[in-house]
Amino acid sequence: MTAESFADRHIGPGPDDERRMLETVGYASIDELMDAAIPEVIRWHGRLDLPEPASEHDTLAELRALAGRNTVAVSMIGLGYHGTHTPAVIRRNVLENPAWYTAYTPYQPEISQGRLEALLNFQTMVSDLTGLATANASMLDEGTAAAEAMTLARRASKSRSRVYVVDSDALPQTIAVIAGRAEPLGIEVRVVDVDRDALPAEFFGLHLQYPGASGVVRDHAPLVEAAHAAGALVTVAADLLALTLLRAPGEIGADIAAGTTQRFGVPMGFGGPHAGYLAVRAGLERMLPGRLVGVSRDAAGAPAYRLALQTREQHIRREKATSNICTAQVLLAVMASMYAVYHGPDGLRRIAERTHRRAVRLADSLRGAGVDVPDVPFFDTVTAVVPGRAAEVVAAAEQRGVNLRLVDADRVGISCDETTTEAHLAAVCAAFGVPLAAGDAEPRLLAALRRGSDFLTHPVFHAHRSETAMLRYLRRLADLDYALDRGMIPLGSCTMKLNATTEMEPVSWAEFAHLHPFAPAGQTTGYREMISQLEGWLAEVTGYDAVSVQPNAGSQGELAGLLAIRAYHRSRGETHRDVCLIPSSAHGTNAASAVMAGMRVVVVGCDADGNVDLVDLDTKIAAHADALAAIMVTYPSTHGVYETGIASLCAKVHDAGGQVYVDGANLNALVGFAKPGRFGADVSHLNLHKTFCIPHGGGGPGVGPVAVRAHLAPFLPGDPAGAPVDGRPAISAARYGSAGILPIPWAYLRMMGADGLARATGVAVLAANYVAARLRGHFPVLYAGNKGLVAHECILDLRPVTKATGVSVDDVAKRLIDYGFHAPTMSFPVAGTLMVEPTESEDLAELDRFCDALIAIRAEIDKVGSGEWPAGDNPLANAPHTAQMLTGDQWPHPYPRSVGGYPAGVDRVAKYWSPVRRVDGGYGDRNLVCSCPSPQAYED
Amino acid sequence: MTAESFADRHIGPGPDDERRMLETVGYASIDELMDAAIPEVIRWHGRLDLPEPASEHDTLAELRALAGRNTVAVSMIGLGYHGTHTPAVIRRNVLENPAWYTAYTPYQPEISQGRLEALLNFQTMVSDLTGLATANASMLDEGTAAAEAMTLARRASKSRSRVYVVDSDALPQTIAVIAGRAEPLGIEVRVVDVDRDALPAEFFGLHLQYPGASGVVRDHAPLVEAAHAAGALVTVAADLLALTLLRAPGEIGADIAAGTTQRFGVPMGFGGPHAGYLAVRAGLERMLPGRLVGVSRDAAGAPAYRLALQTREQHIRREKATSNICTAQVLLAVMASMYAVYHGPDGLRRIAERTHRRAVRLADSLRGAGVDVPDVPFFDTVTAVVPGRAAEVVAAAEQRGVNLRLVDADRVGISCDETTTEAHLAAVCAAFGVPLAAGDAEPRLLAALRRGSDFLTHPVFHAHRSETAMLRYLRRLADLDYALDRGMIPLGSCTMKLNATTEMEPVSWAEFAHLHPFAPAGQTTGYREMISQLEGWLAEVTGYDAVSVQPNAGSQGELAGLLAIRAYHRSRGETHRDVCLIPSSAHGTNAASAVMAGMRVVVVGCDADGNVDLVDLDTKIAAHADALAAIMVTYPSTHGVYETGIASLCAKVHDAGGQVYVDGANLNALVGFAKPGRFGADVSHLNLHKTFCIPHGGGGPGVGPVAVRAHLAPFLPGDPAGAPVDGRPAISAARYGSAGILPIPWAYLRMMGADGLARATGVAVLAANYVAARLRGHFPVLYAGNKGLVAHECILDLRPVTKATGVSVDDVAKRLIDYGFHAPTMSFPVAGTLMVEPTESEDLAELDRFCDALIAIRAEIDKVGSGEWPAGDNPLANAPHTAQMLTGDQWPHPYPRSVGGYPAGVDRVAKYWSPVRRVDGGYGDRNLVCSCPSPQAYED
Repeated sequence: MTAESFADRHIGPGPDDERRMLETVGYASIDELMDAAIPEVIRWHGRLDLPEPASEHDTLAELRALAGRNTVAVSMIGLGYHGTHTPAVIRRNVLENPAWYTAYTPYQPEISQGRLEALLNFQTMVSDLTGLATANASMLDEGTAAAEAMTLARRASKSRSRVYVVDSDALPQTIAVIAGRAEPLGIEVRVVDVDRDALPAEFFGLHLQYPGASGVVRDHAPLVEAAHAAGALVTVAADLLALTLLRAPGEIGADIAAGTTQRFGVPMGFGGPHAGYLAVRAGLERMLPGRLVGVSRDAAGAPAYRLALQTREQHIRREKATSNICTAQVLLAVMASMYAVYHGPDGLRRIAERTHRRAVRLADSLRGAGVDVPDVPFFDTVTAVVPGRAAEVVAAAEQRGVNLRLVDADRVGISCDETTTEAHLAAVCAAFGVPLAAGDAEPRLLAALRRGSDFLTHPVFHAHRSETAMLRYLRRLADLDYALDRGMIPLGSCTMKLNATTEMEPVSWAEFAHLHPFAPAGQTTGYREMISQLEGWLAEVTGYDAVSVQPNAGSQGELAGLLAIRAYHRSRGETHRDVCLIPSSAHGTNAASAVMAGMRVVVVGCDADGNVDLVDLDTKIAAHADALAAIMVTYPSTHGVYETGIASLCAKVHDAGGQVYVDGANLNALVGFAKPGRFGADVSHLNLHKTFCIPHGGGGPGVGPVAVRAHLAPFLPGDPAGAPVDGRPAISAARYGSAGILPIPWAYLRMMGADGLARATGVAVLAANYVAARLRGHFPVLYAGNKGLVAHECILDLRPVTKATGVSVDDVAKRLIDYGFHAPTMSFPVAGTLMVEPTESEDLAELDRFCDALIAIRAEIDKVGSGEWPAGDNPLANAPHTAQMLTGDQWPHPYPRSVGGYPAGVDRVAKYWSPVRRVDGGYGDRNLVCSCPSPQAYED
Repeated sequence: MTAESFADRHIGPGPDDERRMLETVGYASIDELMDAAIPEVIRWHGRLDLPEPASEHDTLAELRALAGRNTVAVSMIGLGYHGTHTPAVIRRNVLENPAWYTAYTPYQPEISQGRLEALLNFQTMVSDLTGLATANASMLDEGTAAAEAMTLARRASKSRSRVYVVDSDALPQTIAVIAGRAEPLGIEVRVVDVDRDALPAEFFGLHLQYPGASGVVRDHAPLVEAAHAAGALVTVAADLLALTLLRAPGEIGADIAAGTTQRFGVPMGFGGPHAGYLAVRAGLERMLPGRLVGVSRDAAGAPAYRLALQTREQHIRREKATSNICTAQVLLAVMASMYAVYHGPDGLRRIAERTHRRAVRLADSLRGAGVDVPDVPFFDTVTAVVPGRAAEVVAAAEQRGVNLRLVDADRVGISCDETTTEAHLAAVCAAFGVPLAAGDAEPRLLAALRRGSDFLTHPVFHAHRSETAMLRYLRRLADLDYALDRGMIPLGSCTMKLNATTEMEPVSWAEFAHLHPFAPAGQTTGYREMISQLEGWLAEVTGYDAVSVQPNAGSQGELAGLLAIRAYHRSRGETHRDVCLIPSSAHGTNAASAVMAGMRVVVVGCDADGNVDLVDLDTKIAAHADALAAIMVTYPSTHGVYETGIASLCAKVHDAGGQVYVDGANLNALVGFAKPGRFGADVSHLNLHKTFCIPHGGGGPGVGPVAVRAHLAPFLPGDPAGAPVDGRPAISAARYGSAGILPIPWAYLRMMGADGLARATGVAVLAANYVAARLRGHFPVLYAGNKGLVAHECILDLRPVTKATGVSVDDVAKRLIDYGFHAPTMSFPVAGTLMVEPTESEDLAELDRFCDALIAIRAEIDKVGSGEWPAGDNPLANAPHTAQMLTGDQWPHPYPRSVGGYPAGVDRVAKYWSPVRRVDGGYGDRNLVCSCPSPQAYED
């Protein structure tokens, strides 16, 4: 008499499917399979202590109740988070559309042209508004973007100084994040009052806020000049809405611009997610961290988008890395870019002017009634001086439903935004005990700072002004892409599982969407309760004692974990411990994070089976015994293997005084069966998208909580809104990171319960072994160590066929598009292989369709091998085939058109067509174009 | 300093576009154009008295406030409206997905295969569950479905009796609707207690409820036998959920089954919309009213879906018509069918059993505590007898948040459903002052009534059990179709304008979605306030004095209006007035509605310009002067012309004692410029989808309010929940019809305001004249009467080219698919023509793309005419071209493939491909297959 079980909806295979899959794999039950697959040394035999699973309906009701304990007030706090109207057409057709939110990072550019175009629009928007040559495809938030700008400046500056100068009127949380990043890197942050203090004699970079946190709009040109004279680079953290009216950073000589695009239609979400941005002047583009979309061409010479300079990113260069950034905030960047597309330059300027005039009207009203409002230029933010009365005014405003910024005992900050109304202004005035003056206000920006240059001149920012046109543009782009709503995306190491609608729906609710991260605690009770429950559940699942959800990407979780280890050693006086052991099979980010945490990376080798070489480990420990800070291992390994040596590994490192960091990337192979916090690890970060259903969104948002044992708990990330550097550095700009999407993992855990989660793990492992069993006869399966079993993913070795036939991993990946699939992970962790991770959400029909496709492709490869098809001109080499190519009036290829377009098993009625042929990566890197090309480019 | 104007988003052309369009048409301004286009005799020069337009954000806030004045209680009232859990994946990906809700009725089957498949699933579901051979693609609600069943029985029965027998345990609102329909048709409804009363000696039909409104499940087999013996047909109004456990109507010999599918995942919506159903035994299928989807084949012989027997429907047979039903409830039928697809037969059975056991547990608890619960078989509904205390119990339950049914002073009805929980049962027991007994309950259905047969055996009801699989199925079907989110649908007479997201969003809110139509008035304050405002605004726009939103389709609005006229004449003792004049150019429904209202149809001719022939009008008035009840005219006419004779026409009819019915179908050409209620009409119905943005949803829901002048106000539809036939017959089963979607027109009116609405009208007329001006040189434009201007649509005459070249309207329509368009309306109102209505929502780029396509097609026709392309084998004759055809290994056609697939101007990157070739209509009608074919059918 129980309600429908959500687990039955989340998990693809039903009982019959499971039976057939087990038969193929050769086990009688999932329990038996898991007993065989998971080494007993790590196996945990309990049942997770989680609430009994709730139905979808009841889960939504519980979240409604939590949401009801939040208060949606009018936010005039500012500080980089502003009220904004998300156009409904964008909310529904991007944020709430699985075609956008279930898409993967566009590593396969042919089937990602839609989101690549949207991101190119984003880059163009940022580049135009900041007046800088090249913008990347988004950063995690303003704080981390500013920190990346600092390290970029350090790399690019010719100065040998380690001093970084930061404007004291920068956002407090930005200063906190910069400081947290600087310290382990040996960078000295010097906060100066740019109105009063002199710049130091030597420094490598200068961070300026524009407008300042206080609201003041300064002419930064003289400072920029002074910094350049000192050989320093200048970052201007600029408000994009203000830039529609103010001179662009690039126009005053800035080298870098950083900031947030949140107020371009992305709800505040109690701090995130939203897209940060980073832009650089010409000459720095190849030093930009993060993802960069570029224009290249396809095999037919047609323009095609792709991720440019990918080597910097997907394959982060280990210990030589300068940034650990992988994830972007694609879904939110798409929203922000579409906001600009929908409003266009004129619309944005109107919004900015309206916002500015509201602020002017407020300043005039206060001043007119005798409140001290210093006479400084401002855009949207006014600081009022009310000696000793600031708290009282802020409280009075809160009573009227408006949140203001309590700067200090004497000063109140008030920020206007797109959503500010006359009624809000009146409420603010009432809080000060003065009336809102009658009459409209004229804009009042210094002529010298007025923007004179055009922006968003590309046609895309002018063509979609009606909702109908906007709707069709969004549909058109979505239709170009292949996302999880079309079929399987069997990405090893990336876990593309179901993002259930019930998990997603609450993200749109006002009570979760519209809270400012610095809102009074009394207004955020429901949020904090939900987060605290989630942190508790994650601790239970992982076996750790404490969890912080602050890191807003896995890479940030890694950094947070390593910084906790570092701080722990230092707290015990062991400041000399700075060596981080990293196996050669690790994700590139691991080493990059270690470097950022001020550690030295020492690589430990792997044996022939892909396991950590315990002999080499001994050697390395011995060589660095006193300096050993930590080891970072992934479990199951990046090879998709449950290594049996893990417990021994942990013991060895602990014995040498080191800490064990288990990268939780593959936690989805452990949940319910093993707990890293119980089998020897001290700290892990989790990638919530991998295990707990945060959607990929085309390449972000990410959430990367860090989980630690009790002794590390005091060193979890600090509150970025607090004073800078109190020993608990802030990892991202908001206390709870991407809080706005935490209802997703909360709902997943709430609906699955202990048994559902364990079943998901079991089915994921079963599915990987099923695929391995079906394909083993066609492609060798690597690293099927333990009893011939893999964990949750399997590696198909293509090197023998490549050697024999010339058919490459790329060819197979692109040919899979013709069969209606997204390719598995290519050449990671082993070059020349495909890593397949089917996940628990795919049912047997889809698993079989995938195996059948790969088997059919194997037969195609044989035809190349036998010479039936020439090496350079065959369905693999020419894949993916577009409809245009196949309907061409000429057909010069030695195989029939039907073989190209409709290989066996493909959906003949509803076939997905790649919109472009194979994209030429090298061409794009050699001819870097990272903003929208003119329409003429498409005419050839 | 005003907020963004919604009108600027709703209306496609911007100021520059408008200027260029006006230039082409030859007017200096829209005002000037409208002055020229609209005859002064009807012109109204005021400004609509509506609230100043609100922004999208403020409109949602106002609707939130209205929603907040509704109370979402637990509904256990039953009576055909039940709580249900809409699976979130269906809510988001059907109800909230523009690909589904902006689709048009599938008259162009090639580009509607997705929704046709969904509807075929619906028909299969109904047919399987009812055990009858053929089900149609949905009805408006259970009440009107039952009324249609009555007239079907009358047509099919060999009995000459006019007596229709209705089970007294039928739903009260069904009895009300049946009675209202019967009276003007001269049918005598006899309500009998089937447990006690004998059947009359002669009757043509019998309506039985199964289970009864009281909850009783009866073995109706003996009654069916008796009715058949009397030559009568039997309709069983059956609950589909109950039918998963109970013997099917077809299994006990019923001829017809009717009912609702609301409880299959469709929210109650305060009464609608949801899909009614109608199914018949073999032999009656060609008498079924409404739409019927059938399986046919395409030009390549592949299976393809289409609307079968269309002639019955799209071209309703005027005065010979037997039903005026056009609209179905497609969007809601799709939801209900997907609910069945997602749950499958086992899931549905589980839900039914759980529901039943809850009811058993409740009955046992009440009975165990001494409450009198008569010992009768039941499924989900229990009637408790509490002499004199019923109102008190119902009030006590309401206080506990649960609504029960107050049957009479002594009896309380309690219905369980999918959403019923233990807590609800406890609350009900508490309202009776008794405890909920402990322990689970066993199902308790009479073995004799237990269903033994299988249902939903087709694979489609077994293949989509995980959310991932369901999501992909919905995406796949949506991708097969062309809807407004892909491009223009320039349908003359059907107005495919923007359905704005802000209008749509509130439809999903619980406070609008989850109210029972018979909920206590105190819980529906916000709803009734919104409806009252909407009715007031519609009255202001139309110039009438009173409006009822009850009719849930335009056809029902027509009937309501004619019944008001009929009742008015009768109230004045003029019962002899029964002639309804209808011009030959009228919509087919007009005549059908007149027949249903008990009137005799007399056709008035049209002159060569398509106007009503005033001379013939005089003749007909003279011939029927004493009997004249009404004239029904469409304005602007169905030819898209503002007829200048309208005022004179009204006067003539009024002088003869008749009433003037102006069909408001084309009101979108009048809003803000003319008011039917002020230029001489007495009554109109409106099609809210045409003028006020209700989405087409693939062929429903519809909303057809009726608007009248004061003298007809007393004769507006009555409350179906009231006693049957009080002189104000009920038109649909719920007091406010499709109340759940009324936030859509409310929001539209609220956001557009007086000026926005008038501008929309002006731009719609401008757009039609722009298209006419651009195409006139390529195809003759018919009926551009007044100063060479058309109204809001234009008719392109293809007869000359057809005569010259053999290229038909069909060929052009299908060729437009290749160019990326939905065809205009074909051969209505004039055979051999295309009627184009661009609406105000299309911007100039899209209008030009359309005109360019038609001009290019004209050039293609010339190539056929010149013999360059053979008549039977050219891009027009072979259209639409599928990707499969164009990528075939053979290409036997005398034109290049590229011409077939990529004609000039088509989107080469994101081309929409028709999934099937031209569908053979005749084949499908000759080989009628109206439920899902076996998968093998697709293998050839």
